[in-house]
Amino acid sequence: MISKQDYYAVIFTSTQTENVNGYGEMALKMEILAKQHVGFLGIDSVRNDVGITVSYWESLDAIKKWKQNSEHLLAQQKGKTYWYSWYNVRICKVEREYEFGNI
Amino acid sequence: MISKQDYYAVIFTSTQTENVNGYGEMALKMEILAKQHVGFLGIDSVRNDVGITVSYWESLDAIKKWKQNSEHLLAQQKGKTYWYSWYNVRICKVEREYEFGNI
Repeated sequence: MISKQDYYAVIFTSTQTENVNGYGEMALKMEILAKQHVGFLGIDSVRNDVGITVSYWESLDAIKKWKQNSEHLLAQQKGKTYWYSWYNVRICKVEREYEFGNI
Repeated sequence: MISKQDYYAVIFTSTQTENVNGYGEMALKMEILAKQHVGFLGIDSVRNDVGITVSYWESLDAIKKWKQNSEHLLAQQKGKTYWYSWYNVRICKVEREYEFGNI
């Protein structure tokens, strides 16, 4: 995803509790929902002990609207109550990008 | 790491080849070296099928100097020759940050 226009990244870093019942289904549901959202550009996600999910968006406004999506709000609430012991969200402007090889 | 000053994130997303001989040692060496580098703020790294490493820096200049560090240049060359089938580097300005819980 090389874009000539400005775009934004949301870096979501997290650690989970021991109670991750229902998390997998919700994470999948949110990924499907995010992909349908206006301004969504892409997502990369990896988890071991720590999880890093980076989603890419056309604008700060698109990020704000995704954060306020009603189903996503419910997921965020469940995340704080049950699944995450800690998380950090960084909203970033992508200033430069380069790539090697072909995926 | 909540900073009141502007700072930058380098999002490094990659897939590896099947030949990762020497990669683990080099990755550890580079992490130790980066931590000693002027302007380094922190690093998060996770790998499954895809790897995401995000490093944080005080300035674009610090990122540029780290990229040009001679030992790091050698590691980058080895990475392209042997270890990575693909990678993407995004240099980002962190615009906003919030956190939940305590790590």
